[in-house]
Amino acid sequence: MSRSRHIVLTSHAPRGPNWRPPIQWGEPDPLKRGPIIGTVTNPMARNAIGTHSGSYSVYLAVSVAIGRLANGHVPDLTNTAPLLPIGPFPQWSDPARIVSLDPWGHLVTEVFKDQIAQGIDIRPTIAVTQARMSVPEVRSAIEAGRLRPDGKILLANGDIQATKIAIDPVWHLPGIAKRFGVEEGPFRHALFQQTGGMYPELVTRTDLEVFLPPIGGTTVYIFGDLRDLADRSKPLACRVHDECNGSDVFGSDICTCRPYLTHGIEVCVKMAQEGGSGLVVYNRKEGRALGEVTKFLVYNARKRQLGGDTAANYFIRTECVAGVQDARFQELMPDVLNWLGITRIDRLASMSNMKHDALVAHGIEIVERIDIPPELIPDDAMVEIEAKKAAGYFTTKDVLDAEALMDVKGRDIT
Amino acid sequence: MSRSRHIVLTSHAPRGPNWRPPIQWGEPDPLKRGPIIGTVTNPMARNAIGTHSGSYSVYLAVSVAIGRLANGHVPDLTNTAPLLPIGPFPQWSDPARIVSLDPWGHLVTEVFKDQIAQGIDIRPTIAVTQARMSVPEVRSAIEAGRLRPDGKILLANGDIQATKIAIDPVWHLPGIAKRFGVEEGPFRHALFQQTGGMYPELVTRTDLEVFLPPIGGTTVYIFGDLRDLADRSKPLACRVHDECNGSDVFGSDICTCRPYLTHGIEVCVKMAQEGGSGLVVYNRKEGRALGEVTKFLVYNARKRQLGGDTAANYFIRTECVAGVQDARFQELMPDVLNWLGITRIDRLASMSNMKHDALVAHGIEIVERIDIPPELIPDDAMVEIEAKKAAGYFTTKDVLDAEALMDVKGRDIT
Repeated sequence: MSRSRHIVLTSHAPRGPNWRPPIQWGEPDPLKRGPIIGTVTNPMARNAIGTHSGSYSVYLAVSVAIGRLANGHVPDLTNTAPLLPIGPFPQWSDPARIVSLDPWGHLVTEVFKDQIAQGIDIRPTIAVTQARMSVPEVRSAIEAGRLRPDGKILLANGDIQATKIAIDPVWHLPGIAKRFGVEEGPFRHALFQQTGGMYPELVTRTDLEVFLPPIGGTTVYIFGDLRDLADRSKPLACRVHDECNGSDVFGSDICTCRPYLTHGIEVCVKMAQEGGSGLVVYNRKEGRALGEVTKFLVYNARKRQLGGDTAANYFIRTECVAGVQDARFQELMPDVLNWLGITRIDRLASMSNMKHDALVAHGIEIVERIDIPPELIPDDAMVEIEAKKAAGYFTTKDVLDAEALMDVKGRDIT
Repeated sequence: MSRSRHIVLTSHAPRGPNWRPPIQWGEPDPLKRGPIIGTVTNPMARNAIGTHSGSYSVYLAVSVAIGRLANGHVPDLTNTAPLLPIGPFPQWSDPARIVSLDPWGHLVTEVFKDQIAQGIDIRPTIAVTQARMSVPEVRSAIEAGRLRPDGKILLANGDIQATKIAIDPVWHLPGIAKRFGVEEGPFRHALFQQTGGMYPELVTRTDLEVFLPPIGGTTVYIFGDLRDLADRSKPLACRVHDECNGSDVFGSDICTCRPYLTHGIEVCVKMAQEGGSGLVVYNRKEGRALGEVTKFLVYNARKRQLGGDTAANYFIRTECVAGVQDARFQELMPDVLNWLGITRIDRLASMSNMKHDALVAHGIEIVERIDIPPELIPDDAMVEIEAKKAAGYFTTKDVLDAEALMDVKGRDIT
């Protein structure tokens, strides 16, 4: 039976307008797994809810709506395939191991070549390219003697050579619900209801199990040889970073985000130079996935509260405004590492117990954790760092008690 | 009639489950304009399509779906109001002048105090706070003598004092369609159809004119006195920047994004020190709002094409993959400047003719444009910059002809 599907998928033209390839999530054979068709070119062929490019699908829709993008445009994917091969890895064929991205997302032009030739609009959800990076903090590390250019990973001019990967979210709803230990039905209903009615198919089309949500994706930076990531004989350094635009781009001193990120890059580059490899995962989860408006509202509430901004009240203020301290659910985060075939991280540049526990729970061994060097913590970020340490974040340093947390104060409003 | 609505809104409790305040977009009196209710706490009170927090609404929905966030949580907005006042400005009461954000979005706890006290879940779509920024390139500018700390805007330690504002998108659909010169009906239908069926209300509920789309928003950084922005007697420097994570955060050398952004910050700080003010607008429009997956696919196609990556073929490659060169539609971008009461930019750090033309077309005078200093352009980014100059971007430098553009080549794949 799956054999006959195999033949249908590869050697026959779609059977009329109703042809919709089934998706067997976790099937090792991509042709049996089936292509994920989230494009709107042929509505009858769609086998997923939502469409491509995450939240940018809205911009593309507007482009069509105002006549700048042709309705039904099919991309010319010539020369877009990954610059370097990735997988398949055993993790790809465990339907429970990867639930929030399509492991075949970067290979569609190869594995679904015939279907695309037949005119089926199948698009990549993952792109793999190269990058040369110029990071001021890395140059400082060279000047300080902490890093030395090797001409291959770290160039003489201070630039870094890296492989980078962009990943759009592809959610297997039954797997996502299972990952969170809830029933799929109520999960889909809440997702529909709480977004104010986004995609009724979440409720009405239970035959569609894959959802391309309109959210930001993930970018991966790899230092050293891509093939070493899945090789347990080679040590791996890793920083899993959740977006913080205010710090990552604009250097806000109220948190440790950019300093920890650039420290993570430094740790990764060093590991790659020492014969291992490095991995930085960047997730679009601004303000703990609460968004920047909520984040700034919380900043104001923290600074204005009685007694000022203290580590003792750090988490409370977020919860008062948002109703939840954190919406990042790190439970899905390990998917990208499993997709890369990673089974061990030798050096994890993160203090987050949530990230650590999620990685360990989903098959990734962690050897050593590195907390942020104290000299990299901005004064005003002591509130956050002490609050997190007291809340269970990993640290090799002292953890303050309730009383001491009251004394860790942030800057007043100027 | 609007008077009676006025009374209903301010002094009476909602009239049962069907109470839904009307929105009169552009009404000078916020109570006549009416609150925008995109929360799902009381579905009967909703007067907008979609919900809050842009694309992060999906994360919040999942938080409820997995039982971490209480269904119906109403935020405690104590102390979250803006640290500094903004508006109202005359631009707020022109329904055609601002169509992609709620000009009252930062003031809801003040102007809709009574409605919130009556239990109506009205939330801010704009948050105004303070920031202290530490930007490596700014420190370099100090070392190079281009900037001098003044102890107020630029501190002795190199940190910058700024006001920052996060803005979530709030689309008035009739105004948006009009802005693009298309009919609202077909516009709404295409928006629905091209997103694969996101929010059927776009088509079925034409009585709902406001849409909170699940896309990233805008962040504004202001240097100097906020009150000077709308004061024509004070000069204003401005950089309108569209997100490029690969460069803004990771320093990719294939484009000029971070160098131009940090140069813009430098220009803004200098202008603020000289008695004017500075403004950086940061829009979440990754890869020309095509998303990062498409962006990386295009990078591969550029590097692999016959003859390698050349300025002559820069735009063509994007169009082959995406079907459109650019999906940012700068037509909506001026809204944030109009919201801030700005009528003139004395120094615009941008070469984009699209940004310039959009600003001028929407009521903002531009005195001087500043192109990126040549020494800030990475080698591999010459392809982009020469292609853009030839395509009509502003420059004080020479523009290459078709033949010369063939000779501007990017780095080969290593």
